[in-house]
Amino acid sequence: MGSIRHLVLAKFKDEAAVEELLQGLQKLVSEIDVVKSFEWGEDVLKDERLGQGFTHAFLLTFGSAEDLATYIKHPSHVAFGKAFRAAIDKILAIDFPVVTNKISA
Amino acid sequence: MGSIRHLVLAKFKDEAAVEELLQGLQKLVSEIDVVKSFEWGEDVLKDERLGQGFTHAFLLTFGSAEDLATYIKHPSHVAFGKAFRAAIDKILAIDFPVVTNKISA
Repeated sequence: MGSIRHLVLAKFKDEAAVEELLQGLQKLVSEIDVVKSFEWGEDVLKDERLGQGFTHAFLLTFGSAEDLATYIKHPSHVAFGKAFRAAIDKILAIDFPVVTNKISA
Repeated sequence: MGSIRHLVLAKFKDEAAVEELLQGLQKLVSEIDVVKSFEWGEDVLKDERLGQGFTHAFLLTFGSAEDLATYIKHPSHVAFGKAFRAAIDKILAIDFPVVTNKISA
């Protein structure tokens, strides 16, 4: 069945408490059942042109568009979103139904 | 062990042969062994501000930074990259070692 991914790229402000925000995000996704999986990472390519300054990627997976909508409007997400947005210089988000063309063990 | 993700966002030109490029990409990743997994999707959020016009996400997974480097410099990838870049309005790419905080079945 079609999973949908919620992809967020962020560039944090210099003074942002990134560690705290990451912990908040981990707590958030652990508490909201519709989040099927959560992974994130810090850019290592560091190509200013290609990466446009984004330093972090966050990838959340949901079982359906409805589940994603449930997450987006969840009061805990709304509250976290406020703190998150206050800490970032810029953000990019897209949602996409996953088409998988290759999986190796 | 630490997988690394190669994330590419693209906005294709209006006249681009997107279907053909997607097939070319599927062929490419199927032929290059170091690509552990490949998935992609088309943005459904369609939020001009949040998505900055990017319409497609491509997510490739590698077992190590060395494998990713092998892919990047593979002659088939270099050749495909030329066709790909000619077909896009803009591109964004970042690479990140995956930190997984939640996985559900």
